Amino acid sequence: MPDQPVNTPGAPARVFADRHIGPTPAEIQEMLKTVGHGSTAELMAAAVPESILTGPGSSAPLALPNAIGEAEALAELRDLAARNDVRTSLLGQGYYGTFTPPVILRNIMENPAWYTAYTPYQPEISQGRLEALLNFQTMVCDLTGLPVSGASLLDESTAAAEAMTLARRASKSKADVFVVDADVFPQTLQVLRTRAEPLGIEVVVADLTQGLPQGDAFGVLVQYPGSGGAVRDPGDVIAAAHERGALAVVAADILALTLLRSPGDLGADIAVGSTQRFGVPLGFGGPHAGYMAVGEKLRRQLPGRLVGVSVDNAGKPAYRLALQTREQHIRREKATSNICTAQVLLAVMAGMYAVYHGPDGLRAIARQVHTRTAALADALVERGFEIVHSAYFDTLRVRVPSAARVVETALEAGYNLLPVDQHTVGVSVDETTSVADLEAVLAAFGEAERGSAKGLPDVDPEAARLPAELAREVDYLAHPVFNTHRSETSLLRYMRRLSDRDLALDRTMIPLGSCTMKLNSTTEMEPVTWPEFAGLHPFAPIDQAAGSMTVIRDLEAWLAEVTGYDAVSLQPNAGSQGEFAGLLAIRGYHRSRGEAHRDVCLIPSSAHGTNAASAVMAGMRVAVVACDDNGNVDLDDLRAKTAEHADDLAAIMVTYPSTHGVYEDTITEVCRLVHEAGGQVYVDGANLNALLGWAKPGEFGADVSHLNLHKTFCIPHGGGGPGVGPVAVRSHLAGFLPNHPAQSEAGPHTGVGPVSAAPFGSAGILPISWAYVRMMGEEGLRSATEVAVLSANYLAKRLEPYFPVLYTGAGGLVAHECVIDIRPLQKASGISNEDVAKRLMDYGFHAPTMSFPVNGTLMVEPTESENLAELERFVEAMIAIRAEIDRVAGGEWDAEDNPLRNAPHTAEAVTAEKWEHGYTRAEAAYPLPSLRTDKYWPPVGRIDQAYGDRNLVCSCPPPEAFAM
Amino acid sequence: MPDQPVNTPGAPARVFADRHIGPTPAEIQEMLKTVGHGSTAELMAAAVPESILTGPGSSAPLALPNAIGEAEALAELRDLAARNDVRTSLLGQGYYGTFTPPVILRNIMENPAWYTAYTPYQPEISQGRLEALLNFQTMVCDLTGLPVSGASLLDESTAAAEAMTLARRASKSKADVFVVDADVFPQTLQVLRTRAEPLGIEVVVADLTQGLPQGDAFGVLVQYPGSGGAVRDPGDVIAAAHERGALAVVAADILALTLLRSPGDLGADIAVGSTQRFGVPLGFGGPHAGYMAVGEKLRRQLPGRLVGVSVDNAGKPAYRLALQTREQHIRREKATSNICTAQVLLAVMAGMYAVYHGPDGLRAIARQVHTRTAALADALVERGFEIVHSAYFDTLRVRVPSAARVVETALEAGYNLLPVDQHTVGVSVDETTSVADLEAVLAAFGEAERGSAKGLPDVDPEAARLPAELAREVDYLAHPVFNTHRSETSLLRYMRRLSDRDLALDRTMIPLGSCTMKLNSTTEMEPVTWPEFAGLHPFAPIDQAAGSMTVIRDLEAWLAEVTGYDAVSLQPNAGSQGEFAGLLAIRGYHRSRGEAHRDVCLIPSSAHGTNAASAVMAGMRVAVVACDDNGNVDLDDLRAKTAEHADDLAAIMVTYPSTHGVYEDTITEVCRLVHEAGGQVYVDGANLNALLGWAKPGEFGADVSHLNLHKTFCIPHGGGGPGVGPVAVRSHLAGFLPNHPAQSEAGPHTGVGPVSAAPFGSAGILPISWAYVRMMGEEGLRSATEVAVLSANYLAKRLEPYFPVLYTGAGGLVAHECVIDIRPLQKASGISNEDVAKRLMDYGFHAPTMSFPVNGTLMVEPTESENLAELERFVEAMIAIRAEIDRVAGGEWDAEDNPLRNAPHTAEAVTAEKWEHGYTRAEAAYPLPSLRTDKYWPPVGRIDQAYGDRNLVCSCPPPEAFAM
Repeated sequence: MPDQPVNTPGAPARVFADRHIGPTPAEIQEMLKTVGHGSTAELMAAAVPESILTGPGSSAPLALPNAIGEAEALAELRDLAARNDVRTSLLGQGYYGTFTPPVILRNIMENPAWYTAYTPYQPEISQGRLEALLNFQTMVCDLTGLPVSGASLLDESTAAAEAMTLARRASKSKADVFVVDADVFPQTLQVLRTRAEPLGIEVVVADLTQGLPQGDAFGVLVQYPGSGGAVRDPGDVIAAAHERGALAVVAADILALTLLRSPGDLGADIAVGSTQRFGVPLGFGGPHAGYMAVGEKLRRQLPGRLVGVSVDNAGKPAYRLALQTREQHIRREKATSNICTAQVLLAVMAGMYAVYHGPDGLRAIARQVHTRTAALADALVERGFEIVHSAYFDTLRVRVPSAARVVETALEAGYNLLPVDQHTVGVSVDETTSVADLEAVLAAFGEAERGSAKGLPDVDPEAARLPAELAREVDYLAHPVFNTHRSETSLLRYMRRLSDRDLALDRTMIPLGSCTMKLNSTTEMEPVTWPEFAGLHPFAPIDQAAGSMTVIRDLEAWLAEVTGYDAVSLQPNAGSQGEFAGLLAIRGYHRSRGEAHRDVCLIPSSAHGTNAASAVMAGMRVAVVACDDNGNVDLDDLRAKTAEHADDLAAIMVTYPSTHGVYEDTITEVCRLVHEAGGQVYVDGANLNALLGWAKPGEFGADVSHLNLHKTFCIPHGGGGPGVGPVAVRSHLAGFLPNHPAQSEAGPHTGVGPVSAAPFGSAGILPISWAYVRMMGEEGLRSATEVAVLSANYLAKRLEPYFPVLYTGAGGLVAHECVIDIRPLQKASGISNEDVAKRLMDYGFHAPTMSFPVNGTLMVEPTESENLAELERFVEAMIAIRAEIDRVAGGEWDAEDNPLRNAPHTAEAVTAEKWEHGYTRAEAAYPLPSLRTDKYWPPVGRIDQAYGDRNLVCSCPPPEAFAM
Repeated sequence: MPDQPVNTPGAPARVFADRHIGPTPAEIQEMLKTVGHGSTAELMAAAVPESILTGPGSSAPLALPNAIGEAEALAELRDLAARNDVRTSLLGQGYYGTFTPPVILRNIMENPAWYTAYTPYQPEISQGRLEALLNFQTMVCDLTGLPVSGASLLDESTAAAEAMTLARRASKSKADVFVVDADVFPQTLQVLRTRAEPLGIEVVVADLTQGLPQGDAFGVLVQYPGSGGAVRDPGDVIAAAHERGALAVVAADILALTLLRSPGDLGADIAVGSTQRFGVPLGFGGPHAGYMAVGEKLRRQLPGRLVGVSVDNAGKPAYRLALQTREQHIRREKATSNICTAQVLLAVMAGMYAVYHGPDGLRAIARQVHTRTAALADALVERGFEIVHSAYFDTLRVRVPSAARVVETALEAGYNLLPVDQHTVGVSVDETTSVADLEAVLAAFGEAERGSAKGLPDVDPEAARLPAELAREVDYLAHPVFNTHRSETSLLRYMRRLSDRDLALDRTMIPLGSCTMKLNSTTEMEPVTWPEFAGLHPFAPIDQAAGSMTVIRDLEAWLAEVTGYDAVSLQPNAGSQGEFAGLLAIRGYHRSRGEAHRDVCLIPSSAHGTNAASAVMAGMRVAVVACDDNGNVDLDDLRAKTAEHADDLAAIMVTYPSTHGVYEDTITEVCRLVHEAGGQVYVDGANLNALLGWAKPGEFGADVSHLNLHKTFCIPHGGGGPGVGPVAVRSHLAGFLPNHPAQSEAGPHTGVGPVSAAPFGSAGILPISWAYVRMMGEEGLRSATEVAVLSANYLAKRLEPYFPVLYTGAGGLVAHECVIDIRPLQKASGISNEDVAKRLMDYGFHAPTMSFPVNGTLMVEPTESENLAELERFVEAMIAIRAEIDRVAGGEWDAEDNPLRNAPHTAEAVTAEKWEHGYTRAEAAYPLPSLRTDKYWPPVGRIDQAYGDRNLVCSCPPPEAFAM
């Protein structure tokens, strides 16, 4: 409840916005002086084109609830949490109860050193999470029996969809058919269909117990064990697929694989699945880490990120993202996937779960799950019920007189069972299922025709209900990392060591252009791990999720309000999925009007590569619109292109402010031109942090946007995921938003199908954005935008004398980020933007974005959360670096042997017995006196990227590799 | 509910004891081989005297509930938490609602880097928390207006008691009278009485509004504002005290001091109080940080710890405990206080609260509290109620027809008000009190004779209800640290930087003899910060604390069971308080039998200094019993002493196993001799980790023990507190345990009075020990003891070839710790145990205990939580250090310029441009290759202790002091 002060002289310290926004009012005044404006409102008015300002010349009020303080927000969230009614869900279908070891929960998921980290594009300062991801990859490789695993995908269903398109690319078959196991998880089937349709792929659902259906296909997907619980040998189907030149994808349960023969062993080309049940809370659907592993031949086609081992400039093993050209610089219309974000934080957790339990522990957990399932099955059989399959791992299908009655009785006892059909009930056992739980479930079934058995029978643990020929014989997780940290103390120290190698927001600003690394406040983060939000199964009856649904509905409404759109879907669990969903909505709209032929998507040359990739995924053809020297859309070329594609124009995708960090004043004209040509306007919401409270895309001409909650709305980057990428549309597109087979509340019945496995995407972390909006309110959000723009302009002004600032808009102003050009200096000195980026590590900074949107530049986005002292620390470092470049340019320092080319400098390098450089040790390590206190030492030197790609190693190297 | 496996092949990973205990079963076998025993049971049987083994030759079962897993324990604790009914308490009396900024809660109180740290006796690796404590001291100095503040005391009441005894020592008056304000907090008065009585101090309670009563006194204590809320000028009383040669103590509310003239300004000699309301959760009574500040003349008499500034060997400012001779080595019978533990974790939090809010924020909070109090007062007056005092800060006394009716009505609305007497109700407003709260409270008062006012009136914030002459005019918190970290980002990074300077259990073993630095598991820690446990006021009606009371009663019963005693009091909030309470029980017992003359306490010469100090505090005379060369009690001398004191013997205090880490086989004989002479046996429980499950002091002859829950029972050390020191007694002493004026449940009505401010001491952290016992069960606790003893013997065996191990018992075995003698090596090389301790920092270790119990030695206690790899890492370091010592002894390295004397080496030192040492940089920093990965760099070099004491600076130095 908002609290009115009783004539208190405002208690400024209690306003959350003042904690979220870095600079104090006095600092803001000082910064304004430098930028040359009298107030932030004046600055905004000067920077933002009048035509898009919400309201004449200023901003119209946002209809948001009044801001409340942190204590009040926590109280409201506790009330919402209490409205969730967390039952024990035995629903299965890819989501299982799991016990997150508290030491992992607290020291990873609740630890800013892990959750505020950025994607490990700068590997020298990301060695900790890269090692954790390598553990994850090794775990997936070992369990799937395939040699190459990526560093996580968004969820099992989208991983299956990525596998489908990978299979299409890699298959020798020219067919457009992808065969899917009838016993697949329903959400996976629907996501496959959503993804297949625009690409012209025919999804054929087949009962694979009857073998592969006749006809050509480029791939087949087998669920292992089946959605209904049956464990069948997929070997024959895989062999049949290979005979026809098709690739075989096995969607496998990661825990079952500890007891079952691996997909690789069975001949599969690709394995996909979820690692949720390895210690990641259900969270009403996410976020969790999906996985994909492939055979050697496919490794260069793996979508998403791949961590590999290389060496640093001292020859020491060092981790980094491998084969990055495949990924970070997604190749526009040649793109094969639009995946950017992974689920790093969750993959790290799942990997740590394996590190903590080790092979024996995982096996024991799986055995317990399996034995208890068998005990339940035996008890049911004793009572006269029929179990549909005789071979199962953790999931039973039970024939009953009335499924509804059993489900209802179980519900009253506090358990969610799965109503499969009128006479079949599904039960999935997990590691948290106790004997008491099983007894309660048993009671819910009641007595069938006969039987008066009592309690659970004993089951011989050796007499497994897994087919003997599928019993796993190949060992796994033999690497020492999975066999060392059995005690909590040992694991705690291991996690601390890893996190200490990395630079995250808890130690330094991360001035990444386009990534908006702002504060992820503790109050926002706290509710995420409360059991009431963390414990809900995504397919639980919706009335058990009243609190979470309020969070979802509030957030949808607030996001619509601040963007000027009419409807929002929170389902896309990454920006890439949001883009895809937005384009699908446009596609659906055109088709609904009989204009299915509209399939051209205009994309400015300055756009992020993902845009084009998403367009291709949505079945569109990409036409590039030129940009002028300032990175702005070339209106003449746009006119030409809209004329050329007047008949088949589907959409334009633009980023606003532009990827160059400028408020283009032609945006309304761009929208008008495209609309006139019958196209829809997609505004990429990546840069929304420059707009909130000052302009609304839905009002200045756009039809659809995706938002990045992990940028503007405070969801932490988690070291490279989770992301959340809701899509927002105007009303005419609302009927074409995603929906979901398991929850009718998830979207319109006319919708385009699901784009993610879970109905509401990463619902478990939505309280973060909810809390942010709730605590900021209208005024806070608007101030945040102002200070973000002020800070970027402040940096631009402070750095301009030392580095040219590339693009500016009206009044020489930038938006919320600025591009610094290193190319002229490079010409003079040979020092590249990469050298500057690596040298910043010696100064204790995470580098800005490198070479995007323009090669040879650095893009800096300070966000509103950095105070003046931190901005100045950065300026001081950049000025010092400029002076260093001058010493190289002037010949004082050798062109090769200088602190920039040799950056970053490890402690080992600087303490070497012999110092053979043309600069001093102090110049290497302490170029500024302030660095002598609390110095961050990069754990490795400059990493040799090419070496790593030539010698691809993507699972944990043996310890000897690190020996001196 | 304990869960029976259904024929599962045990899930070993799920047993908590396996996570708590470091070595795996295989490692235990390996260690047993080294130690030369076949099993841990055999080892224990060999080490522990048969006469004390519980049961013939082996251990009798402990009647504890069966162990449960972490998930089950959390579920039980959630159930217990739900049984606490947290109302809004407006009870005041020294405890107030406060909002802990979540960024502080999560990143300090829930962060192992802070909570697992040890007391900063090794300052070079404790610079972070020392700075945080200096912030606390500076805050207390500024607000109290006195120049020297300690680094926290246990609570306000014991701080007042310490002030009383300090005043007695320092006063020129020979009187034994201490005058106490009638308007003092009741618990403070009672703690003063408990402490005064054995010392022969007469506590005279006086209405100080009438001036100081006639007669001589050595001191006077004024509560400011008064317990009843009145704000009065204590200046006259202070002046009157000074005229009589008495010292003036002011017990002041820390928040009120932001608006009121400070005690120092008013002439006080000493100020005491609590900093609880600066962001430390109520926790049903604690832990919180008490404070004491004194004038210059008294600074060397300040009890407890004092952080000061000195310089390191490079001349850089560095923090460390000042005037340590006063404290760590408490001088036995000359002791002036037995305080060891402070409340570091809580003091750090309170200090950070001030850092975050700054002077303006604190003032705004105080103004809000005050203005709202005034609004409530005005509304009550409008309604015809009488407010007893016209000048108040946050607390009102309201005259009503029936106090019981108002309190009852408020309770129904969810509020606890204070029933002062039949016609008076107390209300205290705090920073969490909202306008809605005040309206609800107002409603509870109902309408008196007249008035139909509605809602709260506006109050002119300038028209304060504080006496104009007491308005604060002196600024405070001007130091930059209190004016820099206004944003959450900035504070987060500051806290991270500080914690990174320190070495805590999350990075290395802390092998501190006698301090039992074992795992503080996350599951144990989680409940502490749940609002249901954290939010209870200590004087709330007991039926609102059903969950906490279950935790307390369970724990009392379990502790009695494992120690063999009959009754336990959890009130003592540190070991020192437990010792005092235990001796008071003995004193009470003798007096109850008409043997008040029994006042001699025998203490072996090997005892910890605290023992003697406690005995003096309990009004006893100390007689020292000699020890033999092995540190064992000299039985002949004991016989002589018991004979000498046959008539006046009160007790003996012994530590078992001895402070030398040995199971003395004469313990039963010692008990017998003392009992025969009419004395009681006090066994110091510091070393209980060597006994649990194998021997029970209450059964082998002791009458009373205190336990250190922060040693054996997993409460983290918090960087130097909180501690918890329950006292356990046999039945004949049970009637003499502590009790409490505010909660009859807190102890026997025949009890000795309170020893701590809160009825159940640090009740907020008792779930930690509860969870430990609940998850370990009998078998787990016994195993922990076995592995602790095994690990100590393993280290002794491994180190013996390199360093003499000083004391051993039967079979050459030590107990749970071993003493390593450096003196012979020092003779040969000049290298001292301090040099070894500091050198260990270069190896990434926290040093063992230095020079206790014997000068020139190191005492090592590995605990059961360190796995073999970590034990071996320590062994490897010690062996390497031995080799280094040999190089000095052999003349290869200079006696002064060697890596031991120069240890620890900072990164700055090792990267110096010129290296002028007789050893290499690598020998300085990387004496072992493994150190090249994840190297910990001490933030400062060896600290000059003497310099700091000569130039005593105990508040934050200006930033210029750190300039290069």
